Amino acid sequence: MLQLSPMQKLRMEYQPKLPPLLKNLSTIGVVASSDVFEKPVISECFPNIAGQKILHFEANREKKSLPLKMGVLFSGGQAPGGHNVIAGLFDAMKELNSESTLLGFLGGPQGIIDNAYIKITASLLTNYRNQGGFDLIGSGRTKIESTEQYQTALKTVKQLDLDGLVIIGGDDSNTNAAFLAEYFLNNGCKTKVVGVPKTIDGDLKNEHIEISFGFDTACKVYSELIGNICRDVLSSKKYYFFIKLMGRSASHVTLECAMQTHPNLTLIGEEIEAQNKTLQQLVEEITDLICERASQGKDYGVILIPEGVIEFIPECKQLISELNVLMGKEVDLSSVSEHLSESSLHCFNALSEHIRKQLLIDRDPHGNVKVSKIETERFFIEMVKEQLRKRKSAGIYKGAFSAKPLFYGYEGRSGFPSTFDCDYCYSLGYVSALVLNNGATGYMACIQHLDRPAADWRPAAIPLLSMMDLEMRLGKSKPVIKKALVDLKGEPFLTFQQLREDWTLVDGYVYPGPIQYGSN
Amino acid sequence: MLQLSPMQKLRMEYQPKLPPLLKNLSTIGVVASSDVFEKPVISECFPNIAGQKILHFEANREKKSLPLKMGVLFSGGQAPGGHNVIAGLFDAMKELNSESTLLGFLGGPQGIIDNAYIKITASLLTNYRNQGGFDLIGSGRTKIESTEQYQTALKTVKQLDLDGLVIIGGDDSNTNAAFLAEYFLNNGCKTKVVGVPKTIDGDLKNEHIEISFGFDTACKVYSELIGNICRDVLSSKKYYFFIKLMGRSASHVTLECAMQTHPNLTLIGEEIEAQNKTLQQLVEEITDLICERASQGKDYGVILIPEGVIEFIPECKQLISELNVLMGKEVDLSSVSEHLSESSLHCFNALSEHIRKQLLIDRDPHGNVKVSKIETERFFIEMVKEQLRKRKSAGIYKGAFSAKPLFYGYEGRSGFPSTFDCDYCYSLGYVSALVLNNGATGYMACIQHLDRPAADWRPAAIPLLSMMDLEMRLGKSKPVIKKALVDLKGEPFLTFQQLREDWTLVDGYVYPGPIQYGSN
Repeated sequence: MLQLSPMQKLRMEYQPKLPPLLKNLSTIGVVASSDVFEKPVISECFPNIAGQKILHFEANREKKSLPLKMGVLFSGGQAPGGHNVIAGLFDAMKELNSESTLLGFLGGPQGIIDNAYIKITASLLTNYRNQGGFDLIGSGRTKIESTEQYQTALKTVKQLDLDGLVIIGGDDSNTNAAFLAEYFLNNGCKTKVVGVPKTIDGDLKNEHIEISFGFDTACKVYSELIGNICRDVLSSKKYYFFIKLMGRSASHVTLECAMQTHPNLTLIGEEIEAQNKTLQQLVEEITDLICERASQGKDYGVILIPEGVIEFIPECKQLISELNVLMGKEVDLSSVSEHLSESSLHCFNALSEHIRKQLLIDRDPHGNVKVSKIETERFFIEMVKEQLRKRKSAGIYKGAFSAKPLFYGYEGRSGFPSTFDCDYCYSLGYVSALVLNNGATGYMACIQHLDRPAADWRPAAIPLLSMMDLEMRLGKSKPVIKKALVDLKGEPFLTFQQLREDWTLVDGYVYPGPIQYGSN
Repeated sequence: MLQLSPMQKLRMEYQPKLPPLLKNLSTIGVVASSDVFEKPVISECFPNIAGQKILHFEANREKKSLPLKMGVLFSGGQAPGGHNVIAGLFDAMKELNSESTLLGFLGGPQGIIDNAYIKITASLLTNYRNQGGFDLIGSGRTKIESTEQYQTALKTVKQLDLDGLVIIGGDDSNTNAAFLAEYFLNNGCKTKVVGVPKTIDGDLKNEHIEISFGFDTACKVYSELIGNICRDVLSSKKYYFFIKLMGRSASHVTLECAMQTHPNLTLIGEEIEAQNKTLQQLVEEITDLICERASQGKDYGVILIPEGVIEFIPECKQLISELNVLMGKEVDLSSVSEHLSESSLHCFNALSEHIRKQLLIDRDPHGNVKVSKIETERFFIEMVKEQLRKRKSAGIYKGAFSAKPLFYGYEGRSGFPSTFDCDYCYSLGYVSALVLNNGATGYMACIQHLDRPAADWRPAAIPLLSMMDLEMRLGKSKPVIKKALVDLKGEPFLTFQQLREDWTLVDGYVYPGPIQYGSN
């Protein structure tokens, strides 16, 4: 028997806010209003969906929509709000025509290949509205890329007679959405494809897409925990916590959590890269902070480390890139060091055996080093401990160093979505339905003016190609949606840069506490 | 400049609920109503405070109180609500007589020894009301036990002319409170001592003390996170999470979190001990579950492990107890195995080198093995992986095992206290003031009927000696307040036992979500 917590029941009742324009769908028409720049090399790769305009919406018509049949899937890691994209999509489709049908592919893109799906119904959705996780239909990391996979996907959507397919995913999955849109059109298939910007990492954004969904909630969950740790540290005054935060390459999550909690030190990958820092320099900077705090009688503190930091340390990045190439060549792992450049070999040998092993053994589905598996939080503790030992011998440091590693990641991916993510995702679902109902394909659903109340939000749809560029993947140049890194000249980083000095010695911890839903 | 989060500000405004009797202190008198059993061996150790009765309170007088001067300190690990004990104590003292003074000893019991304190004022308290952590005055683990320490403590309280001392702590600290009460009386000192039951572990309770403060909040924080992990696991369907939960020896926290989230498997130390299970049996039970789930296509799940589990596995317990004795003798660490009994040596050798090291090197201030430092969550993963490898070779198991270790502890110790802990602690502070105002000493502040609304709560004070028994510590028999373990015949465990079967194969995860404060 299914048991629901009071919170699950409470949130089931919440009706997400919609921008006014989306409140009466039957009147909405699409206005292809603004041109958008697209790289010619990209247009060439996608002749069928090249040169599309940004879509805006207006209340300019009054006609009955035909019943739609659509599919939806989650791709990649969980992000809070995913269920609301499906709820919004479902509600909008039913509002457009009550005979419409929504199918949910099971276990991510693999569901299309396996033709495995369930029919989404109103009663099925009830328990999932405003709830965390992707468990209604599951997710997966299968990437549709081989000719055979494309053919199978085509077969599935044709057989199911789908008018549209909504892919809820990150940069890679939305890149895939563009390829599918192109492939379907090229093969005379009517199925249109729309992507929805999902990722807690916050690295899927650009001049049109203000933020991916899930980022808001994940940062709030992590910040609650970091704040609790800061308070604990300040109470017992005897531990250093090295907290690694999920977020793949970019340091957006870490930056945002730092702004919410004011830790003593925060590593930002993009800054480390720009300053061309070595691993040793980083370790010494951390050690300096610990020594300076110790001289003030403070043998405690909180240090934030972004998951992807290793890749931003130029010497480590070089090493990883050499390793990625070697892996492509299937070089024998035991002889790796013979194939490395001098500087990479130096960096490789500076790493602990444990980390070296992690670099060599764990690979992601794209064949790359699985940076998320590297326990940087423990690694830095070991390196810093060694430095402090030396300084203690030299009489420079007299403190006590007791450090604890922490990693916050999975806790934030499937938590209850914040009210913002509930509303945002629900609207994204609505926009997806509108785009597909208007026969557009190769778009990303979009809501603009997110910093304003939902009443002022502006729905739109952005051509996926406008976000794409060529990038080397496994030694080949491929069109991809580029990950948005932390902009060192952007406001969030500049604000952080201005404030962080104040947090190093004088403890200015802030305690955000748990997400509240109140009357929202 | 101090920055406060919206939650910090919101909670500062909250006025904790008090039982009606505590709302008009000037009318309250103490009624020493009920006798309580005390072991004669204990009474003998504390002749000055032996044979005291349980104190109840009644509105039976109307007289002006004299100004009081009191001290308060935190002892041991943080627990949500501690600041509200001080707030309640302060408010009650000021209500009894506005000239009263409250001093907060800094950094725990060490503050008495060092005569280090601050004066608690209303404005100082403002930012700490209903907030987490112990950072107003800090805490520490110094144990007042040597003759010199007792003398110094006596000197401090005499010099400060304290009428009373409130010790907010766990079993050990409240044991210490009894010793101090006895010592002060024996030395003709007027300072009375009251203990307040603090610990997130939930192991400081008895027929009179229903629960220690902090347990409620900590379990809710952990359950939020465990629920999020369960949802994540059910969405991606590819990981096993082995989650270790803080709570020192007893498995109360783990049991409570299991009831709130319904994980697939939960280890309960007390049950393992009662069933006389070996480490190998435990590992096989976990492996069995994983194999059975794999046969249903489920290569994912959540397993809860209490921090103290190792001590409850009889063979490990025996090993640890032998090690504790050896450590007392300062045996050379490298030759430890020569001094172990045959069965302990067998158990010792079955452990990984890493765990063996942890057992030998890390000791708590009492000289005992520091069980909390043992990374059981990783240890079990390694052992289970090895078992699965064997079963896979034998063709019995065909699943995929990808496991992730987690430890939740510090996050829950200093979080914002739940409304329950806010109210409970505030009332405990009031009761402490009342007890001391009435000249009683050697008591623990107590609130009964906690399962009812605060309006029905019943304040009381329980003689500390009634909770004490003799126990072996470092080879000597000492009077201590015994830790309350999970009662295998008690309702919480029996309910869990009845339900847990349903959670092993059919995923019945519950998602509690973050603590809400709403209009409470």
